[in-house]
Amino acid sequence: MNVYLIRHGIASDRAEYSSDAERPLTELGRKKTKKVAKRLFNLNIRFDLILTSPLVRAVQTAEILQNTGLCKKREIFESLSPDGDINLWVNWYALNQDHHSVALVGHQPDLGNWAEILTWGKVGEKLIVKKAGVIGVKIFENGTPIGNGELFLLSSPKWLI
Amino acid sequence: MNVYLIRHGIASDRAEYSSDAERPLTELGRKKTKKVAKRLFNLNIRFDLILTSPLVRAVQTAEILQNTGLCKKREIFESLSPDGDINLWVNWYALNQDHHSVALVGHQPDLGNWAEILTWGKVGEKLIVKKAGVIGVKIFENGTPIGNGELFLLSSPKWLI
Repeated sequence: MNVYLIRHGIASDRAEYSSDAERPLTELGRKKTKKVAKRLFNLNIRFDLILTSPLVRAVQTAEILQNTGLCKKREIFESLSPDGDINLWVNWYALNQDHHSVALVGHQPDLGNWAEILTWGKVGEKLIVKKAGVIGVKIFENGTPIGNGELFLLSSPKWLI
Repeated sequence: MNVYLIRHGIASDRAEYSSDAERPLTELGRKKTKKVAKRLFNLNIRFDLILTSPLVRAVQTAEILQNTGLCKKREIFESLSPDGDINLWVNWYALNQDHHSVALVGHQPDLGNWAEILTWGKVGEKLIVKKAGVIGVKIFENGTPIGNGELFLLSSPKWLI
């Protein structure tokens, strides 16, 4: 399974919103995210499913990916929220190994940490993941996905758009 | 210092050459490598210095990077040969910390291993690095570069060209 961990685009300032969860993408954030999505589309990347954090800026990012034609299905996945538990996704993985390509839309430092856990089995906080940046991890089928992946992509938007 | 570890482009078949070290880039290898170099140039990437493995396919890759305008200076660095010792580069680093951006042109699995050693302090063989692919590691200034870096880029040519 190819897992694409995609960070939400640039969002509005915290000061303007009572709740962090409500912060939407800015116009620039939308624009850059659309460009990244378009580029992935042109490279023939498709997802069987997009799982997204429930926070507004992540949901809007996932919507853009979907509307660009990268995927037909999109679902909220609670543990993609900040500080979410990767083990819930590991359980999901056990039941969904027939998927070839999945996008996880969420937040930093969690996405980088998840990518490190899937690849090296532990967190080193060593991946620089910019907003609307993409990490690609290829997970091999047998057993647990933890420490069972290989990193094939780490890119900020600038390399893609 | 930003260290760009760049794998040589597609090279001719082993069967055609008596020595592995002599294998040149193929036409497709040259073409793809040029496209990657052009893309890096357009993104304003510049190197203070290119260090390259002495093997022909690496030297030709380094030449393309130089001729595209990414760098004025290019030097052979013996330990970028297959199975070369990263500690010789660590010694080089100690004397060249004033460089902001350096390219290391070499081979797999060594380049991926070096990137892992610089970033996580040890080899996991977890980075997929295609021919003419690029790894970017940002190294922070203090002390040894081993385990002192952060990964900001891992890309095969397809994402760049």
